[in-house]
Amino acid sequence: MDRIRATYRITAGESESRVRAEALATEQSVEMPVGAIDDPHVLTDVLARVEAIRPHAGEFDVVLAIAPATTGNEAGQLMNMLFGNCSLQPEVELVDVELPEGFERAFPGPRFGIDGIRTVTGVKDRPLTCTALKPQGTPSAGLAKLARTFALAGIDVIKDDHGIANQAYAPFAERVPAVQRAVTQANQETGGRTVYAPTFSGGPRALAEQTRIAKDCGVKMALVAPMLIGLPSFFELQVDLDIPVMAHPAFGGAGRIAPPLLLGKLFRLFGADATIFPNHGGRFSFSKATCLAIADAARSPWHGLRGALPVPAGGMSVERVPEMVAGYGKDSMLLIGGGLLSAKDRLLERSREFVAAVRG
Amino acid sequence: MDRIRATYRITAGESESRVRAEALATEQSVEMPVGAIDDPHVLTDVLARVEAIRPHAGEFDVVLAIAPATTGNEAGQLMNMLFGNCSLQPEVELVDVELPEGFERAFPGPRFGIDGIRTVTGVKDRPLTCTALKPQGTPSAGLAKLARTFALAGIDVIKDDHGIANQAYAPFAERVPAVQRAVTQANQETGGRTVYAPTFSGGPRALAEQTRIAKDCGVKMALVAPMLIGLPSFFELQVDLDIPVMAHPAFGGAGRIAPPLLLGKLFRLFGADATIFPNHGGRFSFSKATCLAIADAARSPWHGLRGALPVPAGGMSVERVPEMVAGYGKDSMLLIGGGLLSAKDRLLERSREFVAAVRG
Repeated sequence: MDRIRATYRITAGESESRVRAEALATEQSVEMPVGAIDDPHVLTDVLARVEAIRPHAGEFDVVLAIAPATTGNEAGQLMNMLFGNCSLQPEVELVDVELPEGFERAFPGPRFGIDGIRTVTGVKDRPLTCTALKPQGTPSAGLAKLARTFALAGIDVIKDDHGIANQAYAPFAERVPAVQRAVTQANQETGGRTVYAPTFSGGPRALAEQTRIAKDCGVKMALVAPMLIGLPSFFELQVDLDIPVMAHPAFGGAGRIAPPLLLGKLFRLFGADATIFPNHGGRFSFSKATCLAIADAARSPWHGLRGALPVPAGGMSVERVPEMVAGYGKDSMLLIGGGLLSAKDRLLERSREFVAAVRG
Repeated sequence: MDRIRATYRITAGESESRVRAEALATEQSVEMPVGAIDDPHVLTDVLARVEAIRPHAGEFDVVLAIAPATTGNEAGQLMNMLFGNCSLQPEVELVDVELPEGFERAFPGPRFGIDGIRTVTGVKDRPLTCTALKPQGTPSAGLAKLARTFALAGIDVIKDDHGIANQAYAPFAERVPAVQRAVTQANQETGGRTVYAPTFSGGPRALAEQTRIAKDCGVKMALVAPMLIGLPSFFELQVDLDIPVMAHPAFGGAGRIAPPLLLGKLFRLFGADATIFPNHGGRFSFSKATCLAIADAARSPWHGLRGALPVPAGGMSVERVPEMVAGYGKDSMLLIGGGLLSAKDRLLERSREFVAAVRG
C-alpha cells in the first residue's frame, strides 16, 4: 500500500527546515536515532520519509510519507502517528492528511452519511433544521416538553445540548426515553418525522449502557463529542449504535489541528454522519473561509466514503438563515439553539419561523 | 458541595474582560442567553459564576466557579465543563483547576501512586530508571531480546515505545507475553525485579482484550496515552487493570491546557500512577520551570490523592543523570530510550552505566 501523506506547518526559519523535517519524520515513526537502527525492514517500511518541504509565508510546510502499517488500522494509533508527540511541539500544526487507496477498508467513514440522514428525517432537496434542548439543569420532563414544542414546529433534528450528558438532574436512562416519547407523540399528531439525537458520553461501560437504552426506546440519531470520549471509542460507538451520528467539536482544541482536517476529514473518516462546527459571525472566531473548508472536507468526494452533513452552529439566528442557506447549500443542517429559546413564550412561533425560513 | 474553580488566561484587552468573563461563564455551563432562563434552580445551582478577574501582563485571568453537579462525576463531562466549547476559542487557555472538598470521592486519583510503584519494583530511596523498547517495526522476538538486555542491566521499568501499539509486525497478543517472559526469565537469573509496561491502545473492545491478555501473563505495569484513548476510557481502564499505570503525553496538544495542569493534576486525578513528560533540554521545548511545575503538580499533597511519579523523558542521556536527579529528587523515574539504543553493541554496558549513575 502507498503511504499516508501528512502535511505539517512549522513556525521556524526556513534555514532549519531540512533538519526540522527530518527530525519530524523520526519523531512520528521510529522515535529514536536513525543511525542506531540496523533492521533494513524498519528503515525501508516503517521510518517516515520527508516527501516535500515547501516555503509558506516565512514558515514552511513539511509533507511526511507515513507507513500505513504503523497505524495498526486503529483510530487512536492513526492519530498517534499523525500528531502524537509533535502535538507537544507548539510550533508544529497538522494541516492536512491524504490517505492511500485501500485505507478506507479499515476506516469506511460514515455508515449513513448525508443520504442516510435524509432517509431518517424524510427531508429531500433542502437544508435540514436542527435545534438543541437547553439549558442543562432542566429536569427530564422539562426537556421533554421543550422537545415536544420543537417537534410540533416541524424542526427536523432536536439534539441534546452538548453539556447535557448523564447528570443527576436528568440522567440518560430517564431523560432519553422521556424525550423520545414526547417527540414520537408529537410526530403522530403532526404526521412529521422529527428525530431526537441525545448526547452519548462517558467511558466504555457508560456508552454500552446508553447504547442499550437508546435502542430500547427507538432513538434514531446520536450526538457525540469524539474528542471528549476519545477517537477510538467514537469509532467503535458509531458502529455499535448503527444510527446516524452527529459529531460535536467540544474539546477539539483550536488551531493545532486545522479545523477542516479535524472536524471535516478526520471525524468523517471515523464515521461521523454529520459534523457540527462554530459558524462564522457567531460566538466563535472561525473565519468564513474556514467554515466553508470544513463543509467542503465533510461532503466532497473522498475515497468513496459517504459525505458527512455540515452543521454550522453557535450563536446563530433565524435572521441569518437565508445567508446560511446561500453559503452552505442544500446539503447542510442549520442549528439554532439559544436563538430560538430567547423567544421564551413565543418558542413555538419562533421555531416555526425557523422551519419556514429554511423550507422557503 | 462547594464549586470547582477553573482559571482561564484570555488573550484580549482588559477593557473587554468583564464581558468576556461573563460570556465564558455562560459558554461553560448553560450555553444559552441567561435572560432566556426562568428556572431559579438553573440560575442558582447550574450557571457558572465569574469569581475573579485579574490582570496578567496585558492579558487577564478569569476564575470561574463551576457547579460540580454539571460534571455528572464523569471524566469526559468534567473536561467538557472545563474546556469543551472554549477549547475552540484560540484566545482562551485553561491554566488551573481547584476542586472542592469531597470531589475526590468520584475521582480518587492514582490507585498505587509513587509508593505503589516502589512496592512493585522494590526500589527504595532513589529515583527509578526507565527505558523504552524501540523502534516499532521490530518483531516481538527482537523486542523480547532487547527487554532481556535491559532487564539484565537492572533497569527498573521497561516500557513499550509509545508508538508500539497493536500493529501486525508485533501484535499485543504475541508481543506482550513474549516480552514479559523474557523479563521474568532475566529477573530469575539476576534476582532483580524489572517490570515491563506494555502500551494499551484502541477502543473499548481492544482495551478489554489487552487487559485480559496482560492479566493472563502477569504484566505488572501499563503504559497508556490518555488523550489518544480518551480520558473517560483511561479512567475506566486504570480501574480495570488494577496495576500501576504510566500516562504518556501523546496527542496532549501544547499550550492550550497548561502542561502542569493536564500532565500533572488532571492525569493524576484520573488515575495515572506515573506521568511521562518531555524534559527541558531534550527534543521538546518545555522550559525547566514548566517541567518542575509538572513534577510538583504530580506529587504534591492534593486532597489526599496518592502522588503520581514524575517521569522526565525525550532525548535524555546518561550524562544528564546527575543533573536530573538533582533537579527532580528521589521521587522520580528517569526515562532514557534512544540514548541507550545508540550504544548498539554496547547496549548492556550503557544500560548498566545508566543504572549505576542513578544508584550512585
